[in-house]
Amino acid sequence: MIDHTHDPAAVCWVESAAGHADFPVQNLPLGIFSLAGGSAPRGGTAIGDAVLDLVAIAPLLEADVAAAVKTTAGGTLNALAAAGPDVLRRLRHGLFALLTDPAQRPKVANHLHDAAGCTLHLPFAIGDYTDFYTGIHHAENIGRIFRPDNPLLPNYKYVPIGYHGRASSVRVSGGEVRRPMGQTRPAGHEAPGFGPSRRLDYELEMAIWVGQGNELGQPVPIGEAGAHIAGLSLLNDWSARDVQAWEYQPLGPFLAKNFHTGVSPWVVTLDALAPFRRAQPPRPAGDPAPLPYLYDEADQASGAFDITMEVLLTTRAMREAGLSPHRLSIGSTLAMYWTPAQLVAHHASNGCNLAPGDLLGTGTLSGADPSSFGSLMEITASGTQPIALPTGETRTFLEDGDEVVMTAWAEAEGRVRVGFGSCAGVIAP
Amino acid sequence: MIDHTHDPAAVCWVESAAGHADFPVQNLPLGIFSLAGGSAPRGGTAIGDAVLDLVAIAPLLEADVAAAVKTTAGGTLNALAAAGPDVLRRLRHGLFALLTDPAQRPKVANHLHDAAGCTLHLPFAIGDYTDFYTGIHHAENIGRIFRPDNPLLPNYKYVPIGYHGRASSVRVSGGEVRRPMGQTRPAGHEAPGFGPSRRLDYELEMAIWVGQGNELGQPVPIGEAGAHIAGLSLLNDWSARDVQAWEYQPLGPFLAKNFHTGVSPWVVTLDALAPFRRAQPPRPAGDPAPLPYLYDEADQASGAFDITMEVLLTTRAMREAGLSPHRLSIGSTLAMYWTPAQLVAHHASNGCNLAPGDLLGTGTLSGADPSSFGSLMEITASGTQPIALPTGETRTFLEDGDEVVMTAWAEAEGRVRVGFGSCAGVIAP
Repeated sequence: MIDHTHDPAAVCWVESAAGHADFPVQNLPLGIFSLAGGSAPRGGTAIGDAVLDLVAIAPLLEADVAAAVKTTAGGTLNALAAAGPDVLRRLRHGLFALLTDPAQRPKVANHLHDAAGCTLHLPFAIGDYTDFYTGIHHAENIGRIFRPDNPLLPNYKYVPIGYHGRASSVRVSGGEVRRPMGQTRPAGHEAPGFGPSRRLDYELEMAIWVGQGNELGQPVPIGEAGAHIAGLSLLNDWSARDVQAWEYQPLGPFLAKNFHTGVSPWVVTLDALAPFRRAQPPRPAGDPAPLPYLYDEADQASGAFDITMEVLLTTRAMREAGLSPHRLSIGSTLAMYWTPAQLVAHHASNGCNLAPGDLLGTGTLSGADPSSFGSLMEITASGTQPIALPTGETRTFLEDGDEVVMTAWAEAEGRVRVGFGSCAGVIAP
Repeated sequence: MIDHTHDPAAVCWVESAAGHADFPVQNLPLGIFSLAGGSAPRGGTAIGDAVLDLVAIAPLLEADVAAAVKTTAGGTLNALAAAGPDVLRRLRHGLFALLTDPAQRPKVANHLHDAAGCTLHLPFAIGDYTDFYTGIHHAENIGRIFRPDNPLLPNYKYVPIGYHGRASSVRVSGGEVRRPMGQTRPAGHEAPGFGPSRRLDYELEMAIWVGQGNELGQPVPIGEAGAHIAGLSLLNDWSARDVQAWEYQPLGPFLAKNFHTGVSPWVVTLDALAPFRRAQPPRPAGDPAPLPYLYDEADQASGAFDITMEVLLTTRAMREAGLSPHRLSIGSTLAMYWTPAQLVAHHASNGCNLAPGDLLGTGTLSGADPSSFGSLMEITASGTQPIALPTGETRTFLEDGDEVVMTAWAEAEGRVRVGFGSCAGVIAP
């Protein structure tokens, strides 16, 4: 499935694309942008330091691809993604051809905009948001806090555990994240109080965007599930741990999670990520095989995505001192116990209807090693082991003014690195 | 707050409205309907055995009310409800005046349609759906199954427990409900299997529809929370108990609940229900007072809604024998431990943004007595005590062909009874 759009020798006539950490011509992620002047949001692709206006260049594409691209003039990628993987693939090939053929430059170049002058928006109108729990090391780390002898519950290796999140409070990277108020019960108290969360945390996740949907009552077979995914972004599942601890029994997290969820603006397609799957089964030997409705030989054989994920922290004092961000963790999506296709197949297995633009979170992706833990809850051992910062400050949980930046990229021998950009937020009081 | 639109002596010139069990002129619920011929769905009100086309009679209303009503030509009540309680109240008064003044009959009567010839649709485009757990007897009944000595968790009387549901699979009353497939682990087995749910159940709830929304980061004070509610409907939270038991730890119900949620089509406004609040605090003596962000003197003083709720079962054999439905339970919304206003204030207390058309479920409303239990799980003691039906059949959980019909109404001394219509569904294989 690796085609010429991954050719490391390809030359793009957009000079900044060559060697770009995130957006070489081998990536071509999709997003929604507007110009600083206040133009209507519409579809774009990131290429080097520029954003290409897809609606403007649509006439240069195949007719059906152009028609799908023009729907992004409505300000979302929903209808484009609903057109399915064949259209997305031909869009990728069409863009690749335009951007690597110098003869096309005169027709295309004036629809390129400096990314620094563009505002990026939420890529989709999100119908429903589901958060999964595929990070097995995270599940073990959190489980160990509550059940030291038996951190993983018996269902974990059979059921891709997930729950519904709040779609209305998902926001694109870049804004402030307001510290939430909430009910908490301090240790040793009988009655709870109400006030600002004192244990505000992030969670490092990937976002999986649904492309084609399915009708209510019509499951998606595992062999077709990958074709229902439009692409991936970064996701920050901001969490108030003190609120969560008090409210979550017996029905799961609610106000501890729904005050803000951040996503990165660029949707990296599965085609762009195809060279970065590891052709090995993601499950350790001895684990139960997935039940048949979750097992597909091709999905298993093409393996797990190996995307590197990093979390950076900058406090207000660090910013004022001009210091570089402090790396909190670096890990990989190989921590996912279930593939994106398995999540889609499981979600629809009872007939639940998924729709274009639905958002699936992977759950926190922590590695086995503390240097790759995906939340402060895990890094600081539930706030008992503060981390030291270059300013002499320490942190257990996030303070006002702290900025959390998540980045991700994929690289492999003989391939051009492909990146996600970033998912950032600053804590406001 | 009780005004002349509740006058029991009012005479409506639509003859079928007099003494109508659900839709007298004192009710005037809002919904979305289309005509059998296939007209575009638009706003209507139920009056007796008829549906009044609100878009058609909009010119007879105040200008700003008419403008809000005309938005329902788009096929949802979202924008009308977003206009807020003052517009909804003046709409109610305007409709009441038109339908009780015989002089208006010539201008209005030809926009009345026989309800039997109308198709009713989902009243709102639902952004997010949240299900609460306000039925304290239900929480105790379910809790007792897992924790016989301590059925209510310590947070229950402080936190209006809730969790996010699936918006995409909410359907209006009347269709088939497909028995879901799912993972279950039979007792005594190590590994789960995958197949049709064998413990399919209903849950009797009320739906609370959000009218005005709030911005992200802007909580809704408890004193203003009632003004954010457009009205109530019935809700059936169809549940697969065997799937739920295996999947729900640690993050709550997921596929056990999201295959189908039913709502009744008519939105009964809070103004219509005002005479049916019981001016007494809903909490038993000795229970902790609500925290200040959940306490409003006016909300407490105007008390809890007293709406009677009934569940009826008809099996295929009963239908074929021409037998009347079997009553499974009859109870009241007085089982709600939290008021609708408290649910809204809690939901937004962390800054979570609610939007017009968002759906809040009350959670299963069981009374203290078994005759008022709101699910088969409770009525049959988790399937151990089958119920007997007039055909000689028994039921622990629902079988294919079973029809569950929920109805609700409010009545009070000196007031005209106001009803909700019904929320119905037939189990399909």
